[in-house]
Amino acid sequence: MMTNSIRPSKRLNNELRKVQIQRGFTKHAEGSVLIAFGDTQVLCTASVLEKVPPHQKGKGEGWVTAEYGMLPRSTHTRNDREAARGKQSGRTQEIQRLIGRSLRSVFDLKLLGERTIHIDCDVIQADGGTRTASITGGFVAARDAVNQLLAKGLITQDPILDHIAAISVGIYQGTPVTDLDYSEDSACDTDMNIVMTGKGGIVEIQGTAEGYPFSQAELLQLLELGTQSIKSLVEIQKEALAQH
Amino acid sequence: MMTNSIRPSKRLNNELRKVQIQRGFTKHAEGSVLIAFGDTQVLCTASVLEKVPPHQKGKGEGWVTAEYGMLPRSTHTRNDREAARGKQSGRTQEIQRLIGRSLRSVFDLKLLGERTIHIDCDVIQADGGTRTASITGGFVAARDAVNQLLAKGLITQDPILDHIAAISVGIYQGTPVTDLDYSEDSACDTDMNIVMTGKGGIVEIQGTAEGYPFSQAELLQLLELGTQSIKSLVEIQKEALAQH
Amino acid sequence: MMTNSIRPSKRLNNELRKVQIQRGFTKHAEGSVLIAFGDTQVLCTASVLEKVPPHQKGKGEGWVTAEYGMLPRSTHTRNDREAARGKQSGRTQEIQRLIGRSLRSVFDLKLLGERTIHIDCDVIQADGGTRTASITGGFVAARDAVNQLLAKGLITQDPILDHIAAISVGIYQGTPVTDLDYSEDSACDTDMNIVMTGKGGIVEIQGTAEGYPFSQAELLQLLELGTQSIKSLVEIQKEALAQH
Amino acid sequence: MMTNSIRPSKRLNNELRKVQIQRGFTKHAEGSVLIAFGDTQVLCTASVLEKVPPHQKGKGEGWVTAEYGMLPRSTHTRNDREAARGKQSGRTQEIQRLIGRSLRSVFDLKLLGERTIHIDCDVIQADGGTRTASITGGFVAARDAVNQLLAKGLITQDPILDHIAAISVGIYQGTPVTDLDYSEDSACDTDMNIVMTGKGGIVEIQGTAEGYPFSQAELLQLLELGTQSIKSLVEIQKEALAQH
Amino acid sequence: MMTNSIRPSKRLNNELRKVQIQRGFTKHAEGSVLIAFGDTQVLCTASVLEKVPPHQKGKGEGWVTAEYGMLPRSTHTRNDREAARGKQSGRTQEIQRLIGRSLRSVFDLKLLGERTIHIDCDVIQADGGTRTASITGGFVAARDAVNQLLAKGLITQDPILDHIAAISVGIYQGTPVTDLDYSEDSACDTDMNIVMTGKGGIVEIQGTAEGYPFSQAELLQLLELGTQSIKSLVEIQKEALAQH
Amino acid sequence: MMTNSIRPSKRLNNELRKVQIQRGFTKHAEGSVLIAFGDTQVLCTASVLEKVPPHQKGKGEGWVTAEYGMLPRSTHTRNDREAARGKQSGRTQEIQRLIGRSLRSVFDLKLLGERTIHIDCDVIQADGGTRTASITGGFVAARDAVNQLLAKGLITQDPILDHIAAISVGIYQGTPVTDLDYSEDSACDTDMNIVMTGKGGIVEIQGTAEGYPFSQAELLQLLELGTQSIKSLVEIQKEALAQH
Repeated sequence: MMTNSIRPSKRLNNELRKVQIQRGFTKHAEGSVLIAFGDTQVLCTASVLEKVPPHQKGKGEGWVTAEYGMLPRSTHTRNDREAARGKQSGRTQEIQRLIGRSLRSVFDLKLLGERTIHIDCDVIQADGGTRTASITGGFVAARDAVNQLLAKGLITQDPILDHIAAISVGIYQGTPVTDLDYSEDSACDTDMNIVMTGKGGIVEIQGTAEGYPFSQAELLQLLELGTQSIKSLVEIQKEALAQH
Repeated sequence: MMTNSIRPSKRLNNELRKVQIQRGFTKHAEGSVLIAFGDTQVLCTASVLEKVPPHQKGKGEGWVTAEYGMLPRSTHTRNDREAARGKQSGRTQEIQRLIGRSLRSVFDLKLLGERTIHIDCDVIQADGGTRTASITGGFVAARDAVNQLLAKGLITQDPILDHIAAISVGIYQGTPVTDLDYSEDSACDTDMNIVMTGKGGIVEIQGTAEGYPFSQAELLQLLELGTQSIKSLVEIQKEALAQH
Repeated sequence: MMTNSIRPSKRLNNELRKVQIQRGFTKHAEGSVLIAFGDTQVLCTASVLEKVPPHQKGKGEGWVTAEYGMLPRSTHTRNDREAARGKQSGRTQEIQRLIGRSLRSVFDLKLLGERTIHIDCDVIQADGGTRTASITGGFVAARDAVNQLLAKGLITQDPILDHIAAISVGIYQGTPVTDLDYSEDSACDTDMNIVMTGKGGIVEIQGTAEGYPFSQAELLQLLELGTQSIKSLVEIQKEALAQH
Repeated sequence: MMTNSIRPSKRLNNELRKVQIQRGFTKHAEGSVLIAFGDTQVLCTASVLEKVPPHQKGKGEGWVTAEYGMLPRSTHTRNDREAARGKQSGRTQEIQRLIGRSLRSVFDLKLLGERTIHIDCDVIQADGGTRTASITGGFVAARDAVNQLLAKGLITQDPILDHIAAISVGIYQGTPVTDLDYSEDSACDTDMNIVMTGKGGIVEIQGTAEGYPFSQAELLQLLELGTQSIKSLVEIQKEALAQH
Repeated sequence: MMTNSIRPSKRLNNELRKVQIQRGFTKHAEGSVLIAFGDTQVLCTASVLEKVPPHQKGKGEGWVTAEYGMLPRSTHTRNDREAARGKQSGRTQEIQRLIGRSLRSVFDLKLLGERTIHIDCDVIQADGGTRTASITGGFVAARDAVNQLLAKGLITQDPILDHIAAISVGIYQGTPVTDLDYSEDSACDTDMNIVMTGKGGIVEIQGTAEGYPFSQAELLQLLELGTQSIKSLVEIQKEALAQH
Repeated sequence: MMTNSIRPSKRLNNELRKVQIQRGFTKHAEGSVLIAFGDTQVLCTASVLEKVPPHQKGKGEGWVTAEYGMLPRSTHTRNDREAARGKQSGRTQEIQRLIGRSLRSVFDLKLLGERTIHIDCDVIQADGGTRTASITGGFVAARDAVNQLLAKGLITQDPILDHIAAISVGIYQGTPVTDLDYSEDSACDTDMNIVMTGKGGIVEIQGTAEGYPFSQAELLQLLELGTQSIKSLVEIQKEALAQH
C-alpha cells in the first residue's frame, strides 16, 4: 500500500515511476524514441552514419557513440545553452561517455561493419534519472536502427548481443529506494547508477556518497534493488519493441 | 480541389499546413508550447528571469530575447551538435536574432519591468519553416509567461501590445505559394519570410532570390499571400490561448 | 534646395551621400576597392583562391563568399576586437552571409571554374550603411578579380551576369529617405536594405520595423526610392570600372 | 612467492606497487606532494585561496575542488597539450570531478571557513592508476595545507574528518588483482576504482566492464581486495604525515 | 648613388623607405594615423577609455596598451581572418605585447590618471616592418590623443616623457642594411628590431639569427645603423606633429 | 667573496645559481631532462614524432618545435590552468616560439629527415629564468633524443650542429648581474635574454627596459656577462651528457 511509503513520491521502495517508450517519435532518424521515467522525458535518436571515427579506421569494425544535452528550460530554472556558452560542461561529457560505453558493451562491433550508430539523447524535461532514461531509451533507438540495417540487407548478422538498461538507486533516510526523482535524488545520502544487460551482467556501477560514506552491506542492498528494477525495464523495452 | 495543386505537397497555393499549438508541453517553464506546422515541430519555452542584460541595466525597463537550436537529428541527415562544435553557426545566430527582434516589437518593455522574457526555440523535427514556427509559437509561450506575471501581481498592466506571427512564402514554378515545406523551399526561386502583428502591421520582411531575381510585382503577390496566412495563424493562436 | 530638407544630414529625401570608389587601393589583392558612402569607408578586397569549400568539391563549379569586419575604432566608441574576443558576433555573421549571398546571385558558378572569389569587407570608418557599401564595393573588387582571370586566360567566358548594388532606405519622421547615415538610422522607425541587379531585379530585401510596424504602402514607397538609388549606384560602379 | 604470480608485473594479486609519498616537493604551494604508485608519478599541490566559487558565496562555508592534467609526454606516445588544443577532454573533466568530490567528502566545509582548497594533480609519468594516486596524494597535500591554516590560527577546529584514499582493482584473466599498472589495465576485463575513508566507508565506487559484463560475486571480490589495499594506503599516508 | 646598391630595393644600406604619416585619417578616434614605410601601411588609432584594466585598478594611475591585426588580404596570399578562426596567433600576440610595452615606456602613468590609451594597429598593406611602423605611428596617434586630453583640461601635465620609434635592421649578404622590406627580410641572415626613445635610449632590442648565428661586432653595427634610422624617424614624427 | 654582493641573492654579479641537469627523469620520452637553475625547475622532454607539420611536408626535411607551460602552482600564487581557461596566454606563446626558434638554429633539418623533435618544457617550480632554463635543458633532451635516432640507425649523420644555451642578465641598481632570480628580476631596470651557440654565436638577443631606457654601453656589458655565463652553461651541458 502506498500510504506507508516514506518517499516524497509516495512510491514503494522498489517501485519504478511510470515508464513509457514511444517509438518513431520523429521521422528522420533511423531510430527515434521518446522515453519517460515519470516526468523525466528524453528524446533518444539513433543515426546510422556510413563512416567511423579516426581511431576505428581500417579495423574492419564499427563504432557506437552518444551525445547528451539538456534543453535550456528542461529544468526548474533555466540553464545556459551549451552551444551559446561554447562548450559542454564536465557533467555533460561524463554522461555522454557513460551512455556510449554502456551501449557499446552489447554490440559486436565487427558484425556492425564500418559504420557508426550515433545516439543523441536530448532531455526535454528533467526530473531526475536523465542518464538512466537515456541508456534505456537509447538502446531501443539503437535496436530500431539496427533492425533497419538488417531489413535492408546491409548487415546479415545481428550485432546486438543483449539488452541494456539502467537505473538509479539510492539510500533515502536510511532505506534503499529505486528510480530516484529529482526531489529524492537531492535528499539521498548515497546515489548509485547501475547499468546491466538483459542477462543480468553488470556493465557499469557508479556509486557516490553524497552525505556520509556507505557500507558494503548498503551497496549490496542497492545492487539487489537495481537488479530487480532493471529486469522490469528490460521487460518494458521488449514490450515496446514487440509493437507494430 | 487539391487535385489541381501544382505543389509537391498537393496543397492549394494559399493553404497552410496543419498548424497545431500545444500549450503546457513541459512543466518547468513559465510558458511552454509545442508548435507544429505540418511535420515541422518546435518546442518554444518562455522563461522569466528576474534580471536584464548589461545594456538594459538601470533603464527601468525589461528585455525580450530568444535562442534557437536544432536537435542534431531533427533533419534528414544528422548535423553536428553546436555545443560539441563549440559555436553556433551563422544561420543559428541570424535566426535567433530575428525571433528576438520580432517578439520585442510587440512588447512595451517599460511595462514589463526590469526582467527578461527568454524564449528558447528548439527544433524537434524540421521540415521547412522552423523560424516562422518559432516566432508564432514563441509568442504563445511569451503570452502564457506574461499572463502568469499578471496573475501573480508582479506586473499590473499588460506589456504585450498585439499578437505577432510569421510565415514563409515563395515562388514555386512561377506561382506564389504559402508555408513552404522543406521540398518546396529547396525548389523555390524566391523565399520570403514575413513577420506581422495581429493588426496587420509589417514588423519584418526578408526576401531572398534563390534562383533568379524577383520583381516588385512578385514581391507584392507574396506579401498579399503572407498577410492572409498570418491572419489565419493569429486566429489559431487565439484559439489555442482561449483554451483553459 | 537643401534648405528645405527635413533630414539631419540636410540631404534631399532621395539624395545619396557622396559615393567614391577607389580601385587598386592595395596592391596584393586581385581586386581592391576603397568605397565611401559619405563618411562610411569600407575596404573591399577580392582574392582568387584556387580551391573551393568542401560542400562545392567535385561539382565542377566555383564559389563566391565574403567575410566582414569592423576595425575596433571605426565607430564612435571603441568596440572589442573580434579576434581578441575569440568569436564573430551574430551581427557580423549575418552581414557577411548577406554579402556573400548577394554577390553569388550575379555569378554563373559553372563558368567560374573550381575556384573561389573570397571578398573581404573591412570597415575603416563607420557612419551607417556599411553592409550596403560592402556589397556595392565588393562587386567592383570582384569584377576586377574576374577581369584578371579573363586577361590571364584562366577562364574564357565571363561568369558575371550583371551588376549588383545595395542601399539602405528608411522612414524618417514619416517620410521615406534614402542612404541613411548613422544619426538618421538611429532615428528611423523603419529600416530597409535592398539589394538589386543592374537590370532592376530584386535579390534581397530586408525590412525591419524599429519603432512601430509599417504598412504595405510604406514598403512600396521605400522600394521605389531604393530602386532609384541603386540605379545611381550602378552608374557610379560603371564609371569607376571605365577608368584606367 | 612472486614466482607464482599470474600478473605481467609479477606482483601477488593483492600486492600494491611501491608507494612513495614525498611531501614539500615544491616550495610555493601550501601543500605539495609527489606521489608514486610504481612508475606512476603525480605532483599534487594544495593551494589555499581566500575566496569561494560563486555557488558557495554567502553560505559561510568553504570549498574543496581539484584540477587534473597530464604532461604531454607523461605517456608512451605524446598527447596533445590541452592548453594548446583549447579545451580539456571529457576524460580530464571526469577525473577532476571525481578527485574534487572525493576530497570534499572528508571535509566539514563549515569549519574550513569561506576559503577554497584547490588541489592540482599533474601527472609527471603515467603507468596506470593516475586518478587513484591523485586522490591518495591529494589528501596528503590538503592535510598539509590545512595544518598550516591551523598553525597560523586562521581556523581553530580541524575541518578534515577522516583520511581518504583510492585504488583501482580489476579482474585479470579471471582473477581479481589490485593496483593495476598500464599493461594490466589494458588487459583487464573489468576495471573498478574505489575511494574509501580511513574508517572504511565507501565514498565512491566506479566499475566498468571492459570486455564482458561482471557478476555481483566478482564485484564483492573486487570490493574486498580494494578495501584491503586502501587500508594499506591510509597507513602509508599516516607514515608520510608523521615525518618531520 | 643608388646604382651601387646591393639591395633588392636599390636603396642605400642606411636609407629608409619613404615614410609618410597622415594624421586624422579617420574621424572617430582621439588619435588616428595612417603610417607608410614604403608599401607597408598601418592604420594606428588611439582611443581614450575612461577605465583601466583590473590589474591597474585603485592604483591612481593609467594604462597604455595595444592590439595588432592584419587585414586578411594585406599580404601576398590571403591569410585566414583571426576573428573567424577564433583566436589570435602567437605572432600577433607577440607583436601587440611589444607595441604596448614600447609605448608604455615613454608614459608617466600617474600623470595620465585612471584612464587607458588603447592603441589599435591594423595593417592595411604589408611589405615588411609592420611592427616597427606600428610603434612609430602608434606614438603619433597617442600623442594626438593625449594632446586632446590636455586641451580639454582633463589632465594638466603632459604624461608623455619622450618620443618613441622603431626600426628593423638586418644583415643582407654580409652587409648591415636598414628598414627591411618583405623581400629583404626573407633573404636576411639576421633580423633585428630596435625600439628607441627620442633621446636615444634603448627600450627594446630583439635580434634573431635567421640563417647562422651573428657576432657581437655585427650586433654593434646593426645597433649603430638602427640608432641613425630612428633619429630620422623621430624627425619625421616631429614634422608630422608640427602640422596644424 | 659573497659578503660584498649587492644582490638580494648574495651572489657575485657574474655568478650563476646552482645548475643541475638530471637526464632520464621520466621513462617514456626519447629525451627527458629535469633542469634546475637554483629554485627554478623545468621538466624538458623531447619526443620524436614520425611526421612533420603541414608547412614542412614534402620538403624532405624535419622540424623542431617547442611548447611551454607552467604548472598552476609553480608560482607564488596559483595561476589559472591554461587548459581550463581554454587558451594559452600571449606570454606562453611568446616563450614557446622563442624556445623552438632557438633549438632549430642548431639543427640541420635535412639531416634530421622527415620527422619532428617536439620539445615540451613544463615548469615545476618557478623562480625566474624559466625560458632560459627551458632552452638550456631542452637542448640536452633533444641531444638524447637524437642520439637515440643515431643509435637505432634511423639517421646516420648527426643533425645537431652545435650546443645552444641561454641566460638572463640584467642591470640591478646600476650594476650588470647574471642569472636573475625572481626577486632580482622584479627589481631590475633592464632585463635581457641571450641565446648563444657553443661557439659563441648569438642566436637571439632580447632586451627590454623595464624602468628607464638603457644605453649601448650597458648593452655591451650585459652581452659580455651573458657570453661568459653561457660558456659555463655549455660546460655543464657537456658534463651532464658525458655521464652514463
